[in-house]
Amino acid sequence: MSDVYQRSVELHRAHRGKVSVESRVPLETREDLSLAYTPGVAEPCRLIEKDPDEAYQMTSKGSTVAVVTDGSAVLGLGDIGPLAALPVMEGKCCLFKRFAGLDAFPLCVDERDPDAFVDAVAKVSVSFGGINLEDISAPRCFEIEEKLQDRLDIPVFHDDQHGTAVVVAAGLLNALKLRGTPIQGCRIVMNGIGAAGSAIAEMLMHLGARDLVLCDRYGVMDPSDERLSHRQRELAARTNPAGVKGDLSEALKGAEVFIGVSKGGLLDQASIRSMGDRPVVFAMANPTPEIFPQEAKAAGAFVVATGRSDFPNQVNNCLGFPGIFKGALAVRARRINLEMKLAAAMAIAAVVQDSLEVDRIIPDPLDPRVVPAVAGAVADAAVKTRVARVSHGG
Amino acid sequence: MSDVYQRSVELHRAHRGKVSVESRVPLETREDLSLAYTPGVAEPCRLIEKDPDEAYQMTSKGSTVAVVTDGSAVLGLGDIGPLAALPVMEGKCCLFKRFAGLDAFPLCVDERDPDAFVDAVAKVSVSFGGINLEDISAPRCFEIEEKLQDRLDIPVFHDDQHGTAVVVAAGLLNALKLRGTPIQGCRIVMNGIGAAGSAIAEMLMHLGARDLVLCDRYGVMDPSDERLSHRQRELAARTNPAGVKGDLSEALKGAEVFIGVSKGGLLDQASIRSMGDRPVVFAMANPTPEIFPQEAKAAGAFVVATGRSDFPNQVNNCLGFPGIFKGALAVRARRINLEMKLAAAMAIAAVVQDSLEVDRIIPDPLDPRVVPAVAGAVADAAVKTRVARVSHGG
Repeated sequence: MSDVYQRSVELHRAHRGKVSVESRVPLETREDLSLAYTPGVAEPCRLIEKDPDEAYQMTSKGSTVAVVTDGSAVLGLGDIGPLAALPVMEGKCCLFKRFAGLDAFPLCVDERDPDAFVDAVAKVSVSFGGINLEDISAPRCFEIEEKLQDRLDIPVFHDDQHGTAVVVAAGLLNALKLRGTPIQGCRIVMNGIGAAGSAIAEMLMHLGARDLVLCDRYGVMDPSDERLSHRQRELAARTNPAGVKGDLSEALKGAEVFIGVSKGGLLDQASIRSMGDRPVVFAMANPTPEIFPQEAKAAGAFVVATGRSDFPNQVNNCLGFPGIFKGALAVRARRINLEMKLAAAMAIAAVVQDSLEVDRIIPDPLDPRVVPAVAGAVADAAVKTRVARVSHGG
Repeated sequence: MSDVYQRSVELHRAHRGKVSVESRVPLETREDLSLAYTPGVAEPCRLIEKDPDEAYQMTSKGSTVAVVTDGSAVLGLGDIGPLAALPVMEGKCCLFKRFAGLDAFPLCVDERDPDAFVDAVAKVSVSFGGINLEDISAPRCFEIEEKLQDRLDIPVFHDDQHGTAVVVAAGLLNALKLRGTPIQGCRIVMNGIGAAGSAIAEMLMHLGARDLVLCDRYGVMDPSDERLSHRQRELAARTNPAGVKGDLSEALKGAEVFIGVSKGGLLDQASIRSMGDRPVVFAMANPTPEIFPQEAKAAGAFVVATGRSDFPNQVNNCLGFPGIFKGALAVRARRINLEMKLAAAMAIAAVVQDSLEVDRIIPDPLDPRVVPAVAGAVADAAVKTRVARVSHGG
């Protein structure tokens, strides 16, 4: 690990940052200047004043995404503040360009109160076509996303929640297809119910999961446990129909699926053996998974997915957010609703449909088929659910 | 004019905006992704958390400028709002890249209360190395600039004020040199005391001007006139030592210099003839100057400058802000102080020193010597006045 860290530092120092802002128009002659700037630019301004939709035709707004954080929950580093989060936000912006051709800009916001944060971001959102929230701690991230979306008429998407949920859903659907089990009949045990965990649980319920058992640091979550957040208690009340009690190892007994967004090394081979026949294991703790794939496989796991690029079945958000934003922006969606997220999950799953294997339940993050497929499906879903303001390519 | 408007609209529609955000780093392989993003990026984050100055080495912060407006005073269009102002802000960002190689990003802010505006901009300023305020109406622009600079440790610069003042000062110094008159002995009549006019008056006083007569719509400004803003009255009290009264035509009698940032067509040949011998005329109203150069010349004007690129002596802010920000950011100046602005004016004036003519008192905006000269002079002044945090190239 120290080697990748060292080379990353060298890369960052060599480039002094990873994003640059470039002009799309020539600026070599006085004539060029008079069209891109004064006096010519007055006319595009006048047209937009008359019809705000013209901003999508004559400015970069329609292709521009703000990557916004407060630096409160950055990667596995925790609360390192908005400035130290900037390398991650710049990296995310590079991914937006690389995978979706979108213009993303990092906005690190020095404000911790959710209402004040929403207020500042809403006020500066004018130049943007969408907002990608990133690395904001739970439960503040839920309130921030909801309030910001209520206030704005452009998509607001907390990628750590929904992006992760979309990719996990895609992978799990394919894993269960290979295993020949409908999701309705599976006991799915989850561990770690923060931003990503909550969103995964919600999405799996929308996909038909009935027997979800949610665990957090105190074991199986109990709706009456006052140590839990309001949202966790509410989720606990809507899950665990069998009334499982106890700690994670208790919950795992006989379960078909484990989904961990928790801590490295939490599971051992005995945990896997205690699960049902041929279990599906998503061990997504980073950088050390809850259990390593080779160990889990040796203990009987049928499919193992992790967050790491050096093992098969990497749950990588690059499979989700680029196509989701590309599709949403293409039809100027007002928000990214459930139907659009489900469409994204189905589209990702479909890409590997013809070559499905236990070590290929999700496409490679660099597979060029993914983003167009996701963008098309998301745009269609936006049009069908009437959150699109224009039809494709409008 | 309609032709340049039409072609500008075509340019804007063809490109769908003028700025794009690009990745500076390769993102073709898994290895690339692991260095620019997770897991490698964690290490730059950790280093910045430990030492915030590392952000200048490992992120784009040090080369990035926010171009910020509320859309309240856009070009000659007035209060068209933040969205309709976006084409101007994007154009300015393109100029920052073209002339200074800086990464500028447009932030159009939907907030009119000065304190709330400052608060929102301050909170999102983390990713930026400097703030260029643009097209904000007077007198709010004064309060916003001052409060924002008080709150931030990066340069805040309202270009409509100081950028214009720097370029006018450069041109006037050269014009008076040609005419053989020290600024101290000149009566300088100004018309239009808004954002630009106030800043020009301040700068000319710092350059030694003693006999300034400031006019606004009610004629020569009177410190007791309650129709004027606080700042205008304060400026009126510090100028006009001769106690000139009456309207603009009264003020012009015998004056050596006229500086207009007011309305097109305000002066006629009789106004010019009423001035002193061989007067210097800066007629900078846009797009129609207070008087056209050929008319003013025919009535005896010695030097005429305008804001237009189709006449000689164009007072163009592109001569100022790119080099000023480039110099300030190169030494991580905490602010852009008076000494830095004076150094910029002198540097611009010096570029045409060896080829000075009545029709070349200021360099052409596309003259490649300007930005390096200004940036160097500004950086030197920042180091000398101890607002720089590093020496050149640090």
